[in-house]
Amino acid sequence: MAAVATQVEVASRDGPATKNKLTMVVFSGELDKLFAAFNIATGAAASGMDVTMFFTFWGLQAIKKSTRTGRSLMGRMLGWFLHDVEGVGPSKMNFGGAGRWMFKRMMRSRNVTPLRELRALAAELGVKMLACQMSMEVMEIDREGLIDMVQGVAGVAAMLEEAAQSKATLFI
Amino acid sequence: MAAVATQVEVASRDGPATKNKLTMVVFSGELDKLFAAFNIATGAAASGMDVTMFFTFWGLQAIKKSTRTGRSLMGRMLGWFLHDVEGVGPSKMNFGGAGRWMFKRMMRSRNVTPLRELRALAAELGVKMLACQMSMEVMEIDREGLIDMVQGVAGVAAMLEEAAQSKATLFI
Amino acid sequence: MAAVATQVEVASRDGPATKNKLTMVVFSGELDKLFAAFNIATGAAASGMDVTMFFTFWGLQAIKKSTRTGRSLMGRMLGWFLHDVEGVGPSKMNFGGAGRWMFKRMMRSRNVTPLRELRALAAELGVKMLACQMSMEVMEIDREGLIDMVQGVAGVAAMLEEAAQSKATLFI
Repeated sequence: MAAVATQVEVASRDGPATKNKLTMVVFSGELDKLFAAFNIATGAAASGMDVTMFFTFWGLQAIKKSTRTGRSLMGRMLGWFLHDVEGVGPSKMNFGGAGRWMFKRMMRSRNVTPLRELRALAAELGVKMLACQMSMEVMEIDREGLIDMVQGVAGVAAMLEEAAQSKATLFI
Repeated sequence: MAAVATQVEVASRDGPATKNKLTMVVFSGELDKLFAAFNIATGAAASGMDVTMFFTFWGLQAIKKSTRTGRSLMGRMLGWFLHDVEGVGPSKMNFGGAGRWMFKRMMRSRNVTPLRELRALAAELGVKMLACQMSMEVMEIDREGLIDMVQGVAGVAAMLEEAAQSKATLFI
Repeated sequence: MAAVATQVEVASRDGPATKNKLTMVVFSGELDKLFAAFNIATGAAASGMDVTMFFTFWGLQAIKKSTRTGRSLMGRMLGWFLHDVEGVGPSKMNFGGAGRWMFKRMMRSRNVTPLRELRALAAELGVKMLACQMSMEVMEIDREGLIDMVQGVAGVAAMLEEAAQSKATLFI
């Protein structure tokens, strides 16, 4: 009993206690990095970990619908360059889109689950997907512009709370 | 009492105990990544976490003065390409500098705190900013070339000690 | 005794307990990022931490032999663009290879250990190097295409188990 009491005290003084949890800040929006992110997320969720993915900046492309975004002139210009999960290319050797095709083909020939299906699997496995509020405002992406699997719009404080409880936090 | 003693033993055998602390290795030097880094840092510090930022390689641009750096021919050549916090561009869609202007404008129109002010806020909130000694040597950046807010020049061992005590460590 | 029993229970319910350990997911394959990764790895190992590096995607270049890889037409095309540890260039200012030469020269003039030697030092210090199985399959890199220092081929589940026991996990 004394031991338990001590641990609770420690937890309150040192911030939240650690759970069997993984937090990922998904900043990048490239095919290969998103693929790594969703692979790690589904692997962790399948092995029983709580997983939270916090999508920010270019990472919002992973949870965007294919509809155009932006209200102001700037926002609409930016919107031309934002893709959805099917349209993002790799971080290396994109060759004006050829790289995207090549990577997808190589993955398919190795029976690797495509990104779109990995994302659906993540949602099924209970991976919590959060969208960064500030990035949405700066990039002029509304909640309606994001897929329904997204569980919420959150700020950096909410992400940090998840991170503080996690065994590991990755910035991708 | 027994419980406390056990915990101290565990801490000494397994390395330092965890504090309510966040460590960030800031390797990248782009506007969007630095913006994410300082946003996370100030958010964490505002919520009561200890925060240490260890700036290395391109990340040194975040804590550089605007003065030119480099002593050798190579170092001075490299110095032409290094910016300060006002001059760095985004990792995507820089379009020869137009992207920097566009991003800054979009951020301002959304009332987002500019990078330079975020950095000052971080210092005010007690975020510890350390510069990587080896990167400074390789890139020929002197202590005088860094802003006064930088609390020290440190090696990888010092960074790792901070990381080992942290709830989360991010490589950005 | 009561305290120890409580801690063991906590560990089993919340996943594996934390050791004095560092896990790195090495996704990137650029000279500067690999240099940072191996510097952190050797620094951590030298200070007594267990270190595991999990090489995935472009990071496989860090543990590739210089031999050409790929079986299918696509795989061989990709193989033309993959380098070994001597051939990788920096993430910025590569200038068609000139940047690689410049960086290596600046590092040498500062008596910085070259990447190839850092890697050997990591192995000597007991850093565990694992190759990502799925990346090897997609990129058509065989076990024989990797250097002997690599201790094993592993999946994301094995990497996550290491991460869950670690003080810090970095995605580089």
